[in-house]
Amino acid sequence: MTSTPVLASTREELAGLLAEPRRSGERIAFVPTMGALHDGHASLMRTARAATSGPVVVSIFVNPMQFAPAEDLDRYPRTLDADLAVCAVEGVDVVFAPGVEEMYPGGFSHDSVHDGVTVAPGELATILDGESRPGHFDGVLTVVAKLFGLVRPDVAVFGQKDYQQLVLIRRMVRDLCLGIDIVGAETVREPDGLALSSRNRYLDADERQVATTLSRALRAAQERAPYGVPAARWAAMSVLREATADGLELDYLALTSPDLGEAPETGEGRILVAARVGTTRLIDNMPIVFDRIAPDARPAGTAPAASTTP
Amino acid sequence: MTSTPVLASTREELAGLLAEPRRSGERIAFVPTMGALHDGHASLMRTARAATSGPVVVSIFVNPMQFAPAEDLDRYPRTLDADLAVCAVEGVDVVFAPGVEEMYPGGFSHDSVHDGVTVAPGELATILDGESRPGHFDGVLTVVAKLFGLVRPDVAVFGQKDYQQLVLIRRMVRDLCLGIDIVGAETVREPDGLALSSRNRYLDADERQVATTLSRALRAAQERAPYGVPAARWAAMSVLREATADGLELDYLALTSPDLGEAPETGEGRILVAARVGTTRLIDNMPIVFDRIAPDARPAGTAPAASTTP
Repeated sequence: MTSTPVLASTREELAGLLAEPRRSGERIAFVPTMGALHDGHASLMRTARAATSGPVVVSIFVNPMQFAPAEDLDRYPRTLDADLAVCAVEGVDVVFAPGVEEMYPGGFSHDSVHDGVTVAPGELATILDGESRPGHFDGVLTVVAKLFGLVRPDVAVFGQKDYQQLVLIRRMVRDLCLGIDIVGAETVREPDGLALSSRNRYLDADERQVATTLSRALRAAQERAPYGVPAARWAAMSVLREATADGLELDYLALTSPDLGEAPETGEGRILVAARVGTTRLIDNMPIVFDRIAPDARPAGTAPAASTTP
Repeated sequence: MTSTPVLASTREELAGLLAEPRRSGERIAFVPTMGALHDGHASLMRTARAATSGPVVVSIFVNPMQFAPAEDLDRYPRTLDADLAVCAVEGVDVVFAPGVEEMYPGGFSHDSVHDGVTVAPGELATILDGESRPGHFDGVLTVVAKLFGLVRPDVAVFGQKDYQQLVLIRRMVRDLCLGIDIVGAETVREPDGLALSSRNRYLDADERQVATTLSRALRAAQERAPYGVPAARWAAMSVLREATADGLELDYLALTSPDLGEAPETGEGRILVAARVGTTRLIDNMPIVFDRIAPDARPAGTAPAASTTP
């Protein structure tokens, strides 16, 4: 059983739809997206649906501010009808799909938006994806702040797939006192491990095969993590290196703490990878638990730097 | 008749006090201050009081982020008991007076706060007071965003005395879609024209006399404004120049549009001045209406560049 969500394309329509639930004190759950919805987004919607008996709002907005001029803004898939069908299946109440003018009155340009007030993401936005995509997280946080201002949700759901984004959004909520519960939902994967992404549709059959390298590298690191950080890194790099011959171009492999600081010698951390396959930039990440097994406690025949799994 | 406002010093206390009014849909009015309250602040509170039948919240927080390391943060007056008495007289319901740790968990330092997420005020923060006080408006907008997040007001009242701040706060509300009505309240002045300011108490008797130069210069410009922008500027500069011998050091005199762009040839604008008197930096501004009277329409014996008033 599905019911069609109400579509709002202006701020006024959105405000009108949310006025009554807000007055009644209903909990508003929110999933911001750029559309091109797949099962990963559907999973975010299910998480949002489970978080409230009030309205679930999904926004669909391809935000120009988070694309650099040379990036894939124009090419980014727009599939509104299919997106609305996904939202209907997942019991979404309101879809907010504004035009660019609605979110950036006067129209968008990188210069003009930075003349105005934006959100500054700080140091954490200069590493990893922020290093490869300067200004990307300024754009992400600014548009999410705008959307938070318009929707005023009690809870918002983001995918762990965009892990640095998730950490930065938690920081924004903390540092600007936004009072919104942020839920990070687990990454949904294809049977062969590839993390779902709207950009996967750019891949041809050969590239699609190479793309599985990312998750395989992360899994290899997870398996070696009981031997410590260097062993885990080496295991992932071994897998990634093999795929360079097939056209994989590594951007970064990073082993960190859960909040993207330095990796701890033992305990919980995160491993993140970004690579280009053909013209498509893909990212993935997984949780990882590091340890430092004392040499005499190792099973016979294993060694930290071996490329086989223990 | 006065009733004592409830004092909240933590976020939790504030949230507890505002939960019920918020649930009942009452309109929350907010006046952010740095304390050292004077009749100018009292006027903001009266404006807030008139704007709602719900609670009026005043915050008192000397925000370290908007002071540069060499500025007067330590010297800035703290007068909480007297401030509470002012709030009581004006019918304020809640006073939020947090410590630094409450607003900047982990303590404040300029480095650490810029590692986190802040509000970037954009180009407009690089001129006028922003040129003399780099980072000042980053601090103002970031703490106001935090306070807006904690109070979640429907309406907030700021003084026109801090005109650039007022324009930037309106921009922040617009660009981050905060949905808060911003009211700019008129500057309250001493009988001799000096704009009320918490920093006036730094002035000794001689400096207090020199300080009246600012408002006199603005009034002189207003009177000459029918002769156009250059005539108005010249009139103000004449007054300011006379006071340099008495220790007034001009920072800027600016004639602008109402939103701090280029001054229009005719119509409404703003005139702003900043100067140091002794060790005290003072600012003031007024509305101004420019015109360009055709030469043959001028009253006999007047000229645009004359220093006497027409």
